[in-house]
Amino acid sequence: MNERLILVTNDDGYASKGLAAAIEVARSFGRVVAVAPETPQSGMSQAITMYNPLYLRKVRAEEGVEVYSFSGTPVDCVKMAFDYLLRGERIDLMISGINHGSNSAVNVLYSGTMGAAIEGSFYNCPAVGLSLDDHGADADFDAAVLYGKRILGDLLSGPITLPLCLNVNVPVGRPEELRGIRLCRQNRGFWREEFFRHEDPRGREYFWLTGAFVNREPEACDTDEWALRNGYVAVVPVQTDLTDYAQLRNLGRFYPSAADGEPETRK
Amino acid sequence: MNERLILVTNDDGYASKGLAAAIEVARSFGRVVAVAPETPQSGMSQAITMYNPLYLRKVRAEEGVEVYSFSGTPVDCVKMAFDYLLRGERIDLMISGINHGSNSAVNVLYSGTMGAAIEGSFYNCPAVGLSLDDHGADADFDAAVLYGKRILGDLLSGPITLPLCLNVNVPVGRPEELRGIRLCRQNRGFWREEFFRHEDPRGREYFWLTGAFVNREPEACDTDEWALRNGYVAVVPVQTDLTDYAQLRNLGRFYPSAADGEPETRK
Repeated sequence: MNERLILVTNDDGYASKGLAAAIEVARSFGRVVAVAPETPQSGMSQAITMYNPLYLRKVRAEEGVEVYSFSGTPVDCVKMAFDYLLRGERIDLMISGINHGSNSAVNVLYSGTMGAAIEGSFYNCPAVGLSLDDHGADADFDAAVLYGKRILGDLLSGPITLPLCLNVNVPVGRPEELRGIRLCRQNRGFWREEFFRHEDPRGREYFWLTGAFVNREPEACDTDEWALRNGYVAVVPVQTDLTDYAQLRNLGRFYPSAADGEPETRK
Repeated sequence: MNERLILVTNDDGYASKGLAAAIEVARSFGRVVAVAPETPQSGMSQAITMYNPLYLRKVRAEEGVEVYSFSGTPVDCVKMAFDYLLRGERIDLMISGINHGSNSAVNVLYSGTMGAAIEGSFYNCPAVGLSLDDHGADADFDAAVLYGKRILGDLLSGPITLPLCLNVNVPVGRPEELRGIRLCRQNRGFWREEFFRHEDPRGREYFWLTGAFVNREPEACDTDEWALRNGYVAVVPVQTDLTDYAQLRNLGRFYPSAADGEPETRK
């Protein structure tokens, strides 16, 4: 049997502690190629770089692990890996992370970590976004590494229905303090933003985004937010058909549906 | 009755022709405030700026129309409008666009135009992303303006179920050449990328993303791609629960579901 090939990326950049933790997870399952952003890319969502040239740089290579930095977004890194660097090779699994900070609830939409994981799943490769609910420089990744290995082991243990993309969020704590894994749905919530407002050294007013997450359904115990707040590792499978089928029916009072059959000329 | 307030943004920047077209659409329904990016932000998805200060600049004000530029992403512009500039005011509707280029199918995920529209819908404001399937500098926006007015008129004609976010894509052509409006679902497809590879003036190799969209279901006549290719204005309502409920059931063989009821200690 050929050795497995695992692609690793993240949004915090190639030198982050979380990338090293993700490589540790991946290394126990096969050969690892990491292509990660040159600079921090938190909050970059599924952005792609259209109007700038991008530079690829080999950072290091050691037994079974190669690390590249790429000067674009997390999604650019994934495209670079699948469409150029590893073109023609079979990539068995992709890990994005381990992110410094959680990506539960609506954060899945803003997150560069999850943008990359979703992109990986477009290539028919099982993709796992791993995030730790701790932004600190001294964050303890042990539990995230342990649970990451467990989840990858489960996925690689048998056939997988594709596409598969998982949003995995790990609470703060030592491995023995966590209460296990829970399958969840994405919590409904939103960010109540504030703009921090100040003057720069030249007297020009500037704004800096800040805010707090508001959970619209704190009582619901089937969401990722609930699991995370209650000591569980939250696993949300992610899909990308954004069609709002309920609104599609509502809007039928205004417009004909393309699904209604043969087109006719109608204004 | 108070005059309506319409927020306008885009991803091509405050000076683009498409923004002027969107303002023309909005202007026929009320007072317009536009907050658009200082620089082009195509492909920025739902990215937010976390690590930089942002500058707001009033570009112009005339009867019923104010235009601001903001040095962030499209989503930053929306947050600036709702959370600072227009805080406390009721915004009746938001338009993002008119984009130079279509945002059908999976492009909804990469598009800064649609990132902004989705963000607007988070504020319980009906939000419409408008895109024209033409990247050219001399693109003819007449049909997009006409259909934009028609769709806004319909939405504002009665009660709306919220949240509501529409992804509207208009084909190339004179208004009289288009075949009308169709409600559609998001087409399944992907981008087959190529990296254009070259050397910069200093001999360093660089990459530039390029590619072609591949429609995985060209025969399906209920998708936005089909409608657009067949001369219809494609309307896809968009939602943001990315939970993959089918995979949630599949993965039940590995992990307990948070929905299964009272938590128990389980590793």
